[in-house]
Amino acid sequence: MAKKALVINGPNLNMLGKREPSIYGSLGYEALSEEIKKRGNALGLAVTIRQSNHEGELVDIIQNASNEADVIIINPGAYTHTSIAIRDALLAAGLPVIEAHMSNIYNREQFRRISYVSDIAVGAICGFGAQSYYLALEAAAAL
Amino acid sequence: MAKKALVINGPNLNMLGKREPSIYGSLGYEALSEEIKKRGNALGLAVTIRQSNHEGELVDIIQNASNEADVIIINPGAYTHTSIAIRDALLAAGLPVIEAHMSNIYNREQFRRISYVSDIAVGAICGFGAQSYYLALEAAAAL
Amino acid sequence: MAKKALVINGPNLNMLGKREPSIYGSLGYEALSEEIKKRGNALGLAVTIRQSNHEGELVDIIQNASNEADVIIINPGAYTHTSIAIRDALLAAGLPVIEAHMSNIYNREQFRRISYVSDIAVGAICGFGAQSYYLALEAAAAL
Amino acid sequence: MAKKALVINGPNLNMLGKREPSIYGSLGYEALSEEIKKRGNALGLAVTIRQSNHEGELVDIIQNASNEADVIIINPGAYTHTSIAIRDALLAAGLPVIEAHMSNIYNREQFRRISYVSDIAVGAICGFGAQSYYLALEAAAAL
Amino acid sequence: MAKKALVINGPNLNMLGKREPSIYGSLGYEALSEEIKKRGNALGLAVTIRQSNHEGELVDIIQNASNEADVIIINPGAYTHTSIAIRDALLAAGLPVIEAHMSNIYNREQFRRISYVSDIAVGAICGFGAQSYYLALEAAAAL
Amino acid sequence: MAKKALVINGPNLNMLGKREPSIYGSLGYEALSEEIKKRGNALGLAVTIRQSNHEGELVDIIQNASNEADVIIINPGAYTHTSIAIRDALLAAGLPVIEAHMSNIYNREQFRRISYVSDIAVGAICGFGAQSYYLALEAAAAL
Amino acid sequence: MAKKALVINGPNLNMLGKREPSIYGSLGYEALSEEIKKRGNALGLAVTIRQSNHEGELVDIIQNASNEADVIIINPGAYTHTSIAIRDALLAAGLPVIEAHMSNIYNREQFRRISYVSDIAVGAICGFGAQSYYLALEAAAAL
Amino acid sequence: MAKKALVINGPNLNMLGKREPSIYGSLGYEALSEEIKKRGNALGLAVTIRQSNHEGELVDIIQNASNEADVIIINPGAYTHTSIAIRDALLAAGLPVIEAHMSNIYNREQFRRISYVSDIAVGAICGFGAQSYYLALEAAAAL
Amino acid sequence: MAKKALVINGPNLNMLGKREPSIYGSLGYEALSEEIKKRGNALGLAVTIRQSNHEGELVDIIQNASNEADVIIINPGAYTHTSIAIRDALLAAGLPVIEAHMSNIYNREQFRRISYVSDIAVGAICGFGAQSYYLALEAAAAL
Amino acid sequence: MAKKALVINGPNLNMLGKREPSIYGSLGYEALSEEIKKRGNALGLAVTIRQSNHEGELVDIIQNASNEADVIIINPGAYTHTSIAIRDALLAAGLPVIEAHMSNIYNREQFRRISYVSDIAVGAICGFGAQSYYLALEAAAAL
Amino acid sequence: MAKKALVINGPNLNMLGKREPSIYGSLGYEALSEEIKKRGNALGLAVTIRQSNHEGELVDIIQNASNEADVIIINPGAYTHTSIAIRDALLAAGLPVIEAHMSNIYNREQFRRISYVSDIAVGAICGFGAQSYYLALEAAAAL
Amino acid sequence: MAKKALVINGPNLNMLGKREPSIYGSLGYEALSEEIKKRGNALGLAVTIRQSNHEGELVDIIQNASNEADVIIINPGAYTHTSIAIRDALLAAGLPVIEAHMSNIYNREQFRRISYVSDIAVGAICGFGAQSYYLALEAAAAL
Repeated sequence: MAKKALVINGPNLNMLGKREPSIYGSLGYEALSEEIKKRGNALGLAVTIRQSNHEGELVDIIQNASNEADVIIINPGAYTHTSIAIRDALLAAGLPVIEAHMSNIYNREQFRRISYVSDIAVGAICGFGAQSYYLALEAAAAL
Repeated sequence: MAKKALVINGPNLNMLGKREPSIYGSLGYEALSEEIKKRGNALGLAVTIRQSNHEGELVDIIQNASNEADVIIINPGAYTHTSIAIRDALLAAGLPVIEAHMSNIYNREQFRRISYVSDIAVGAICGFGAQSYYLALEAAAAL
Repeated sequence: MAKKALVINGPNLNMLGKREPSIYGSLGYEALSEEIKKRGNALGLAVTIRQSNHEGELVDIIQNASNEADVIIINPGAYTHTSIAIRDALLAAGLPVIEAHMSNIYNREQFRRISYVSDIAVGAICGFGAQSYYLALEAAAAL
Repeated sequence: MAKKALVINGPNLNMLGKREPSIYGSLGYEALSEEIKKRGNALGLAVTIRQSNHEGELVDIIQNASNEADVIIINPGAYTHTSIAIRDALLAAGLPVIEAHMSNIYNREQFRRISYVSDIAVGAICGFGAQSYYLALEAAAAL
Repeated sequence: MAKKALVINGPNLNMLGKREPSIYGSLGYEALSEEIKKRGNALGLAVTIRQSNHEGELVDIIQNASNEADVIIINPGAYTHTSIAIRDALLAAGLPVIEAHMSNIYNREQFRRISYVSDIAVGAICGFGAQSYYLALEAAAAL
Repeated sequence: MAKKALVINGPNLNMLGKREPSIYGSLGYEALSEEIKKRGNALGLAVTIRQSNHEGELVDIIQNASNEADVIIINPGAYTHTSIAIRDALLAAGLPVIEAHMSNIYNREQFRRISYVSDIAVGAICGFGAQSYYLALEAAAAL
Repeated sequence: MAKKALVINGPNLNMLGKREPSIYGSLGYEALSEEIKKRGNALGLAVTIRQSNHEGELVDIIQNASNEADVIIINPGAYTHTSIAIRDALLAAGLPVIEAHMSNIYNREQFRRISYVSDIAVGAICGFGAQSYYLALEAAAAL
Repeated sequence: MAKKALVINGPNLNMLGKREPSIYGSLGYEALSEEIKKRGNALGLAVTIRQSNHEGELVDIIQNASNEADVIIINPGAYTHTSIAIRDALLAAGLPVIEAHMSNIYNREQFRRISYVSDIAVGAICGFGAQSYYLALEAAAAL
Repeated sequence: MAKKALVINGPNLNMLGKREPSIYGSLGYEALSEEIKKRGNALGLAVTIRQSNHEGELVDIIQNASNEADVIIINPGAYTHTSIAIRDALLAAGLPVIEAHMSNIYNREQFRRISYVSDIAVGAICGFGAQSYYLALEAAAAL
Repeated sequence: MAKKALVINGPNLNMLGKREPSIYGSLGYEALSEEIKKRGNALGLAVTIRQSNHEGELVDIIQNASNEADVIIINPGAYTHTSIAIRDALLAAGLPVIEAHMSNIYNREQFRRISYVSDIAVGAICGFGAQSYYLALEAAAAL
Repeated sequence: MAKKALVINGPNLNMLGKREPSIYGSLGYEALSEEIKKRGNALGLAVTIRQSNHEGELVDIIQNASNEADVIIINPGAYTHTSIAIRDALLAAGLPVIEAHMSNIYNREQFRRISYVSDIAVGAICGFGAQSYYLALEAAAAL
Repeated sequence: MAKKALVINGPNLNMLGKREPSIYGSLGYEALSEEIKKRGNALGLAVTIRQSNHEGELVDIIQNASNEADVIIINPGAYTHTSIAIRDALLAAGLPVIEAHMSNIYNREQFRRISYVSDIAVGAICGFGAQSYYLALEAAAAL
């Protein structure tokens, strides 16, 4: 039976393609989602993708993850830097977590250098645009 | 007529019993809620319990509290350390507030030492597991 | 055709008139909204007003703003000081932003001195009560 | 009898039109002063405008303000961030103070984020170029 | 045989009733001690109470506690924020510790927010006046 | 009846004359005490002088001060920079406090620049050697 | 021949009696100056008093002090906390300096706790209102 | 012609397999190097691998990279956190850089959270053991 | 036609030769000025020298510089570390700026390590006594 | 005549053998004292050992040291990190000081990394258990 | 067979006797090395001594230590405060480490107070000149 | 006999002309070296130039400098901000040191504002490109 990967995207990622293309590229969110699923399948992963702008909804999604996932790939977006609630939900879920960011969070504002997820994740990948997700899928498949 | 106590629980507290039992114990959230109500009643308190993973929903609940409560007991969970919105809602409510935490927030990560609620609360109780709530109920009854 | 202004209010502003009148005055939220619309119209602005206690909902509102607004006037309330998600949504919207606060955020708690919105806004106005909105409308009309 | 507004400008504002037009616009200082007076009159304010590059002279001006003003609008320029003497003079004057800046002091150097005036002012307006003064006049008229 | 609780009070608590009644209430120290003992007995605890203004004496008391106590309830007063010696003595004693404060240490001076005891205690209670002790007794009884 | 002044000296001040004469001068502690009393009398003050190396003893002395003093002159020595217990005792005493130091605490180690007494004292005098006490006596007489 | 004392007052001290009487008292600047001179004479000091709101003028005054003074008593007012130029002028003058403040600079805003003068002065006196000057005169006479 | 990838390893990575296996795994450095080359080839990359314990040697290697590489994959080891010289060499080389770490640098000592390379790299990957290199190769191939 | 260099000296530099000779040497200010002019002429520079103890006067001088200078050499003295007004005037002047200090500002008090001029200057020279000016003249001639 | 060494032990060291044996070992305080004396004698030192839990008593002991010692070996325990009074007493004593700690104060809590004694001591030794004292004795003998 | 001790000296220690004798004494490096070996032998230790000015070389030496040593005595010199690479090499070596410094690193520049070695060493000795090594040898012999 | 000047260049300076020409200009390292020697000779200096990317090698060079130099001109490149070893070597050499930088280290990254060399140098020159060296030579000739 296929390993189940839950890909969780935080606020504003649904705006991909419309939002600051110089930072995030021109690929739309729907197209990205399709590509992630396709690549995941090729790696033997059953991929579910969820997105929300709501911190609480992201917590809800993570709380339910134990039923539908063996591994979590999360790009918490802006909540990376401010949400202890998401951190706590991930700790409670007890699943391996991979943190992914499309942009390089280290060459932007100072406050983006702090992550409440990194130290509880298996590992982190940032700066490769859409490919950050594909690399995360490979890491998930190899766990 | 009974004094009305509103007990508000923040994110991930609904996972009690499933989440990190070494920190939070094995008592489930439903059982805890029952026990809180029972103990409150024994103290002459009419207890309502609300939980949400959503910061905004917690603000909503607090805004409506003035109609349904004489005192608020709140365990804001992770929002303790990040939410000024909840602080503002509590200030606006104008009711006495008691802060409660099941875990000892002082022997965990450094960022859990900061609370946006403590200085506007009557008092705070932490570290006694489920009993933190029972002690808060007593404090509420004695106000 | 009239310039469209979207006025966005963050958490607890719906409590105006009920909440700490020594800081926020006695004008109710509904009355304020009417006055803002009336004054906006007088300046040739078509004004829409939205309020939410939910950070995610505020992000949703901003994401949809590009369809319904030429300029955003935002009083992010407590999220001013904690929300990078709202900042990111404003950046993604690509519209001129005017930050407004009823209270003087500089003579309150230290943590209210930090704003995640100010440096990406055209300008900021604070401390004039309801008039902060009216001044922001004028600034919006003059952009 | 007309309400008297004293508009005080700090160092380098006399260079308007000659100085960094990308930040401060191309309007000259004389023209700005005329416009401020005209707009003030239209609002029923008798406007006096003073400018100095000297911190001590600004203190002198403020000390004499009680005789010639009902309200002070001040753009302390660079002294915003360094002068406690001006703060003290404003405190001593005992008049309502409105702080105005043409540029957005929040998207420039870090040291421009600190103001010794904001917390003792009624309110603050920044980022709207010449219009910052016009908005301040309206705020002054409405006090 | 009754569980033995040692209640230790730090500097200036002997001044209760005489000292800043707006913060500490009007109950005298003797009366408080009697009430603590009575309430402890009702909970099945044999209560001993000690007070000293001397950091070293408090260390002495704690060092001898292992012979006369099963649990320590300590209100270290001002030493909460400055004494590593008391922390070390508590660590050496090897008994469960409950920290109690009559005042809310979070809405006073900034330096009262730091405690050298909290992270080595089971839990902490503050802000409820004399009732902080009674709640601590209950917590002690329930350990 | 004469105004009663209690002069309290902290740790190591009993070593005067023996200790680092380049900082503290060559006058011995006994001679200083005599001079203080004599000068106090000349100002119409009944002067009592106490010294201790023990923080707790200094707290004891202050607690008893209300019976024997109308004003406290205190040189807390090293405890100036570390003792919240002495601060609390002074607050509890409710008497006017004058802080005095023989050495200039601002041109020594960085940690001597912090005083837990200054902000609750009427005023402070430092750097004038023995004369710091005599000036404090005059200030006490003039209160 | 009499020892010459130069008393230098910084910005806003000329407003004494008019400025925030709750902090600075009701004595006017002229009356204070007379009293200082009279008391200085009684101590055998020839007293000159200078005041300026201008940092540069204060530097000028200090530079000329070596001709007209044996000791400087300075209340730099707000420049205490911001002026290195005055510090440098005092260092260049090479005369003994006594720092005096009417208010207690330690129980006001945090930024008033820093002095660029204290560590190069003989000593400092603050908090005693007009008497701070009189005590400084005595210290000057005794040098 | 194949894209050339230069893989640079910093200090102590030659100890792989011998060094703290709980953090770095049991794979030896030679075996890892073989695997990296093999995987790179499979992706169409000509891979060169260099290791040094010497900061200066790493600078030398990077300076020569422009002749032998199209992309640099670097695991600077401990120099990640301390070497501006390596940062400068990478800036001078003008090639795209990918930062890789075997361990998760965010759940170790605080000082490992700072990287002088991240903000000048395309992206960063950490925490996946040997796989961090394989993912970096894929990112390099896809650039 | 000769390139015009404006040499601006800040507070207390007029005291050269009289002030702390161990730091600033024994050359008097007049002699230094003569030497600077002579050396400037030898380099083909028409040199004007201005000095003031007044921050505002220095701003005035810089504002007028565009008419009388092609390059500014400035030793802002103590205002180096405190004056944003001078920084702003230099920015407004739009001329190349060279910062010069006679003393080594890095081996004195910590607060002398911060300069509001350095990052907007072409370059900076410090520590060489009078020669700092001569080197600055050469740099100015070579621009 | 033998060189006299005074060995001073701070709070909780009397609990040796009973206190946290994983950090401090199982040797009792009496046995340690005997061993220190014996080893001191073998090195030609006349050793006196004092212990107190009281900061003030330790100050008393140090004040009397000049009569009974040529060198001080001190393990200030928890007072290492908090006591300026002990530092001052050591400075006043004017004897060479050797600081010794049984545990390695650098791999424990962050606040144990600060010592008020180290910079005024000849040298420091920590981490070697009882042997820290024996090494200190050798250092004392060799001074 | 003798226990093998590897003594490693960092940069500039080869300059002993030539370098700042007021801090480091007049003993030359060769003589010191001979004395260390001789004293080590007397304690039953086979001593090897290595010195390098190169951080990378020190890493190399430590990496090879497992073959030639049972214990490492290291004086990392300036690298104490800057080298994580040496720390990592020591961790990888898995041998007990003793840190030694000839000078007292606590009474010099602030940046010498930080050590990347202390918390992973058994213990540390500093301030006793050449004797610091001899004491370290004794500690090594006694491990 | 000619005064001997040793010019030392740190890491990446050998890349001049190839590296970031917008910051460092287009002059190649060899050409610069020739120019420095020629200009030095014209000033009567015998110039030796050394460059290394290795911190340890730079230390070696400085240690040998006393034999071959009367003055050191050093551009430590990136090691300016990180190397205490180079600082110590310079202190040990006991020669006058002049610090030179081609770029203006104050308008780049924040971490380039800290220099471990400046406070032990005679003086510093930065921002003038190749001319920084020529000015340093003049300063060296004039010492």
